[in-house]
Amino acid sequence: MSLNKLSSHLWRTGHSVGSRRLTFNSPVWKLGQLNHVAIAVPDMDASVKFYRDVLRANVSEKVPLPEHGVYTVFVNLGNTKIELLHPYGDKSPIANFLEKNKNGGIHHVCIEVDDVYAAVKDLTSQGIRALGAEPKIGAHNKPVMFLHPKDCGGVLVELEQR
Amino acid sequence: MSLNKLSSHLWRTGHSVGSRRLTFNSPVWKLGQLNHVAIAVPDMDASVKFYRDVLRANVSEKVPLPEHGVYTVFVNLGNTKIELLHPYGDKSPIANFLEKNKNGGIHHVCIEVDDVYAAVKDLTSQGIRALGAEPKIGAHNKPVMFLHPKDCGGVLVELEQR
Repeated sequence: MSLNKLSSHLWRTGHSVGSRRLTFNSPVWKLGQLNHVAIAVPDMDASVKFYRDVLRANVSEKVPLPEHGVYTVFVNLGNTKIELLHPYGDKSPIANFLEKNKNGGIHHVCIEVDDVYAAVKDLTSQGIRALGAEPKIGAHNKPVMFLHPKDCGGVLVELEQR
Repeated sequence: MSLNKLSSHLWRTGHSVGSRRLTFNSPVWKLGQLNHVAIAVPDMDASVKFYRDVLRANVSEKVPLPEHGVYTVFVNLGNTKIELLHPYGDKSPIANFLEKNKNGGIHHVCIEVDDVYAAVKDLTSQGIRALGAEPKIGAHNKPVMFLHPKDCGGVLVELEQR
């Protein structure tokens, strides 16, 4: 076990190291890069045409994700991605957003963290509400957690395990 | 003059190269990276605390930009930035947005281009409305142009000269 992993383990389990007790005031998780900006779109084909044919960006195929209630298309901008989202099925988590934003709009930002479990434990201890009891597997097959927009300056923030 | 600049010049001025006439169908401008995601915030101090103290991100000083009607703070995420915006003065361009979004929200995305003048000429010829007659100097002292959200899938898109 590396020193880093040992420290993480001790912090999570609340063990002391010598005279120093690792507490929530010394979290070991670290914020990473912006993984993507997610945009909910009412017409996926029109949006794909805009990014692919008008802006001539690098655009992925459309992928249905029934378990997440969305179709996704990724626009690769080199340093990060735009994730286009369109509802899949009747119970899509973005249906309400598109009802309020008929033309579409920016839905959330996704920031990577090195340890999403430690991050959520730390953030919730500081009063930031998580949307769910614990991280779930997201669209990229990695654990993710959404944070409440009202606790994040009006922005829906997704944390994704790096 | 490099071949690239020559090509750009010929394209802009509509000159032909041999038997091939460079038209709007063969634009020479290129889309670049995501420069930043801009977030309008009703309480800059609270948002700075969130990104700096809670998420422990790398956060810049607050900079007033009277000529743009905003205070800005940059959150450096390594690969790109979040730009926090708060109104400066009575005629801030984000005042209406914050009136509609009391808790704040994601205001626009800014994507770099290698030639903002060529990009705007090409995009407007394809029916994408620009917000203004020509690019203006933006918050980073580079020419920028905003595109109409209704022509960009509901998203306010800023193009910035790289």
